[in-house]
Amino acid sequence: MFKPAAAPSPDLARLAVNTIKFLSIDAIEKANSGHPGLPMGAADYAFILWSRYLKHDPRDPHWPDRDRFVLSAGHGSMLLYSLLHLAGYDLTVDDLKNFRQWGSRTPGHPEAHLTPGVECTTGPLGQGFANGVGMALAAKMAEARLPGLFNHRIWGIVSDGDLMEGVASEAASLAGHLGLGNLKYLYDDNKITLDGNLDESMSEDVAQRFQAYGWRTLAIDGHDHAEIAAALDAACDEHDRPTLILCRTHIGNGAPNKHDTHKVHGEPLGKAETEATKRANGWPVDSPFHVPDEVRALWAGRAEELVQMHQEWRTHETRWIASHPNLVDLYRALSSKSAPKDLLAQLAAAAPAELDATRGLAGAILQRAAALVPSLVGGDADLGGSTKTPLKGSAKVLRGEFAGKNLRFGIREHAMTALCNGMALYGMFIPFGATFLTFSDYSRPALRLAALSDLQNIQVFTHDSVFLGEDGPTHQSVEHIAALRMIPNLDLWRPADGRECAAAWAAAIERRNGPTLLVLSRQKVSATPATATASEAARGGYVLLREEGGPPDLTFLATGSEVGVALEAAKILDGEGRRVRVVSLPCLEVFRRQDVAYQATVLPREGRRISIEAGRTDAWRGWVGEGGLTIGVDRFGASAPAQVIAKEFGLTAPQVADRARTLLG
Amino acid sequence: MFKPAAAPSPDLARLAVNTIKFLSIDAIEKANSGHPGLPMGAADYAFILWSRYLKHDPRDPHWPDRDRFVLSAGHGSMLLYSLLHLAGYDLTVDDLKNFRQWGSRTPGHPEAHLTPGVECTTGPLGQGFANGVGMALAAKMAEARLPGLFNHRIWGIVSDGDLMEGVASEAASLAGHLGLGNLKYLYDDNKITLDGNLDESMSEDVAQRFQAYGWRTLAIDGHDHAEIAAALDAACDEHDRPTLILCRTHIGNGAPNKHDTHKVHGEPLGKAETEATKRANGWPVDSPFHVPDEVRALWAGRAEELVQMHQEWRTHETRWIASHPNLVDLYRALSSKSAPKDLLAQLAAAAPAELDATRGLAGAILQRAAALVPSLVGGDADLGGSTKTPLKGSAKVLRGEFAGKNLRFGIREHAMTALCNGMALYGMFIPFGATFLTFSDYSRPALRLAALSDLQNIQVFTHDSVFLGEDGPTHQSVEHIAALRMIPNLDLWRPADGRECAAAWAAAIERRNGPTLLVLSRQKVSATPATATASEAARGGYVLLREEGGPPDLTFLATGSEVGVALEAAKILDGEGRRVRVVSLPCLEVFRRQDVAYQATVLPREGRRISIEAGRTDAWRGWVGEGGLTIGVDRFGASAPAQVIAKEFGLTAPQVADRARTLLG
Repeated sequence: MFKPAAAPSPDLARLAVNTIKFLSIDAIEKANSGHPGLPMGAADYAFILWSRYLKHDPRDPHWPDRDRFVLSAGHGSMLLYSLLHLAGYDLTVDDLKNFRQWGSRTPGHPEAHLTPGVECTTGPLGQGFANGVGMALAAKMAEARLPGLFNHRIWGIVSDGDLMEGVASEAASLAGHLGLGNLKYLYDDNKITLDGNLDESMSEDVAQRFQAYGWRTLAIDGHDHAEIAAALDAACDEHDRPTLILCRTHIGNGAPNKHDTHKVHGEPLGKAETEATKRANGWPVDSPFHVPDEVRALWAGRAEELVQMHQEWRTHETRWIASHPNLVDLYRALSSKSAPKDLLAQLAAAAPAELDATRGLAGAILQRAAALVPSLVGGDADLGGSTKTPLKGSAKVLRGEFAGKNLRFGIREHAMTALCNGMALYGMFIPFGATFLTFSDYSRPALRLAALSDLQNIQVFTHDSVFLGEDGPTHQSVEHIAALRMIPNLDLWRPADGRECAAAWAAAIERRNGPTLLVLSRQKVSATPATATASEAARGGYVLLREEGGPPDLTFLATGSEVGVALEAAKILDGEGRRVRVVSLPCLEVFRRQDVAYQATVLPREGRRISIEAGRTDAWRGWVGEGGLTIGVDRFGASAPAQVIAKEFGLTAPQVADRARTLLG
Repeated sequence: MFKPAAAPSPDLARLAVNTIKFLSIDAIEKANSGHPGLPMGAADYAFILWSRYLKHDPRDPHWPDRDRFVLSAGHGSMLLYSLLHLAGYDLTVDDLKNFRQWGSRTPGHPEAHLTPGVECTTGPLGQGFANGVGMALAAKMAEARLPGLFNHRIWGIVSDGDLMEGVASEAASLAGHLGLGNLKYLYDDNKITLDGNLDESMSEDVAQRFQAYGWRTLAIDGHDHAEIAAALDAACDEHDRPTLILCRTHIGNGAPNKHDTHKVHGEPLGKAETEATKRANGWPVDSPFHVPDEVRALWAGRAEELVQMHQEWRTHETRWIASHPNLVDLYRALSSKSAPKDLLAQLAAAAPAELDATRGLAGAILQRAAALVPSLVGGDADLGGSTKTPLKGSAKVLRGEFAGKNLRFGIREHAMTALCNGMALYGMFIPFGATFLTFSDYSRPALRLAALSDLQNIQVFTHDSVFLGEDGPTHQSVEHIAALRMIPNLDLWRPADGRECAAAWAAAIERRNGPTLLVLSRQKVSATPATATASEAARGGYVLLREEGGPPDLTFLATGSEVGVALEAAKILDGEGRRVRVVSLPCLEVFRRQDVAYQATVLPREGRRISIEAGRTDAWRGWVGEGGLTIGVDRFGASAPAQVIAKEFGLTAPQVADRARTLLG
């Protein structure tokens, strides 16, 4: 269906490549900040990829059958902005002139939620590489569900730094394992890092390494246009393996003095070298942001072809819909990531009545959610038996078998979360991952990017405290809940019972503009009052047990498995004539978004407050106020059965009641 | 010098292997918790390695010329405890019987600070692999400094999970790059993961991958004693490349029904299968923790040989000292990681007088520190030009060149921190790493293990806030300071000026039992009153500007670059007749360890409090109290020049003064 565009004349190609370089150089000079080395070194193959091979529609960045392009080396952002501008996206010369300025759409590193045509937020190295693998996986899964509808590829530019990062290694191994033949990366092999020569810190055989992962590799001169086109043709013909094209390039290519030096990596060229570079390349020195007419015409012509291609696909789509009546609902559901309007009620009805760990309760609810929400797919980092997240009755996703919903990420937590980001960026899917809470540390950079770029990425973290017991302090979370809550735009749910597990899963599925975490217990949780509703739980904080006969002497604020401890302690104190309220706070972030009046009804000013959560207490001080008490765990855990740990750490109900008594005097 | 012990008879070897297996099985059964699969599958080669090849002294676990052994697959902890017990370490049968119980020396996963003979805390996968690389690097650096004194190797057992983790890929690439021929890993290649068959999640060619990194690889039947011994001989003869021995094993080897299944990975065998396994191997069913006399004798005999070997080395050491008078002081200094008694004063004297970013001030002080402290070595993740941490006048550490102090970790933050853990565990060195604060996320699992196992690992994190400017939100830390402070036993310094930078570096070098972070600004900081002393700064919190004429109306609590903002705001308010105190809190953890009386003199009860820190404010609420105000950044940053960001985020002195005025009424 797709054919590459014809090659322009060598002279026009040279002019077009120089346009990319000088737009980048000029924007970086104007900002007096940025990274000119990569745009200059990669301009040749980036030009050929974008002007001839990339299938996209500059007038509709959301065309579902478009190729995706990931600039994993996000510091080369001006390369991408130059390409978007020239290709005809809604990104003007004024946007380029505002590079790295307050409120601009051309920030220092590309941000997907901000700039039309940017598919992926990059900068922290390795992330884009892994995101692209997630996109390729999602594309394969979409293809398996909607056969014959789509035909597109995932392209990317990756750098030395990307390949050195562990997350890229994990993702590369998975991409080879799954045979993601729709993935094609160009490796900008320039032998220079920010600090100097690559051979000071890396001497591995990259091609051999990727062959070991199951990739096809090609090696070319990254400035030779014929070699570039031949490699891109070969990559397009490869369907069984991901492809890595090693493009030997020269960083800062074209700069007479800084070419091939690390000085051109992360600093503007400077006035003198900019002028020297322009003179050496026959470029007008006094016309910054110059775009020759012939180059404008080249891109405009290509844009017309691409728009035509998109229209043809729309015709194809109409025919496909007509000939696949049984798949139309699925296509619509996947495209809108739709869920039933009464999702919360349906999930609440699916909550098991038996006492269980919240990982068990949430796992049962997840089964119902997956049946209701076609977009919901996910997997775990080889702990499915413990996280309770495998979807029953769904197949595993394996090489050549992409129709299933169960992903097997292997023991690769970081790639798991980063691939989920890529799947969320691709569209069609609401991805989830699962592992122990302590190992959320491994995937923190990817969690941060999910939050920063408004991605619907759900991560299930079980074994959420010292109460996991015998595995000991290496596996026991103490700081993780508090530390994860520090990431802006991230909702962390720590449910106490089946009702709250339902509220958590419903919130996770309905929240489109940021990641949601489900933090779940390994151990059984106690029964909670049947009077509360799932809708109350969905507000993130609510009164679970209300005091009687006057304002409360004491309010317990608790989350997750410690809600049961609070309820039991409240019972003890109630027996002693104290008026005690128990507030469950399954999601602080959602509770904070409720109106102030509601918050005030839940947390009255009267009486003292005690927080109970089996983790760091620091941030709870603000919740309990100066007369209040925080109960938690501010040291590392210990290896022992859970009930022993509870006692040694002062987290049993009688111990909590004792401390409450002391506080109340 | 070292020769492997002679092989025992096949019958005795079988008995000894079974002893390891059944000690492990019995302890796991008794605890009703643990992972029998690995100890059973790895017992053959672990027995041969420990009884014949490993150079160590069970009576002196700190012998500096010992081989190091890392069980990276820490879930197989009972393998290690069984070996330590049999080899003659101070670990009794009662310790084995207390496996995974409160207060025992045999926790669920090995903890180096707890159990004699455990070299490395493991469990979170990939970490031990990378720690071992750090040990091998440290050994090479020790050898280059003290030629002819040492001759030992780093051994390890690594699993599928270890090899899948990105941190291991990063470390493997570095180990090959540096040619760490003293590193020898046995890969327990059992084709089974916790959740099922390995081929569901991994199909890469591990040998080819490691060859690409520059490793030597060998592949053997991991249960064939002759093949094992031959491979260990070959590994000992390899001096130029790290070695990976792929040991094809069967998980749960010897269990009649659970052998080669994932069920034996993470759960006790159970009574029936334990008995069946004992019967099948001719083992007494009714004598748990049975050790045959011949097996005791075998290990006792080997222990005598090893003690003898240690004594011979002590003679060699004495001779070496006599023949290397110019290196004796260095040997002593490295062995004790010694620093001058007046370190703080000397570093304070080295603080530049000029205004600079704290990264620049700390970088200048680091130069002096490295001259004073021979153990201090370190490097960066390819950001040395920005972190200002390269040591002037010291060589880079490269393949075959280990005499230098400057490590080039490449763009591998996780391996950097994990290798520093390994170097700290090895002894002789106080390692530091350096990168941008935001990328501390990449190395968080290793930071946590440093804190958990009391390791002196120093990490320098620069570009510590939104004030890094144009690089934008992907690179701007907002949550990191707060999130890192949540890790127990970790000291985080965020100095405001040269005096505090000196206090921070002195504290980092003098603190032996945990990691220290230096969090530093990219941008210039303001001048601070010259009246304060470095000794005051060393207390973690102190009065930098004292109010006059009565108790304070207002106290600013600030850290790092925001101390300057507080000082300027205080000046504005002072001009309006307010009595304002400025407290600088460069290290909250150290300040909390001061006596309560001192803390009270710094933070008086009178007046209101305002905290200023360019990061998440949540945990500051407890510091300012209910009438107080927190000023910080609770959203993601933005790409723009720093001065624009300051204004947009309300972090200029006039804006802070405005808010103070409103608070005071």
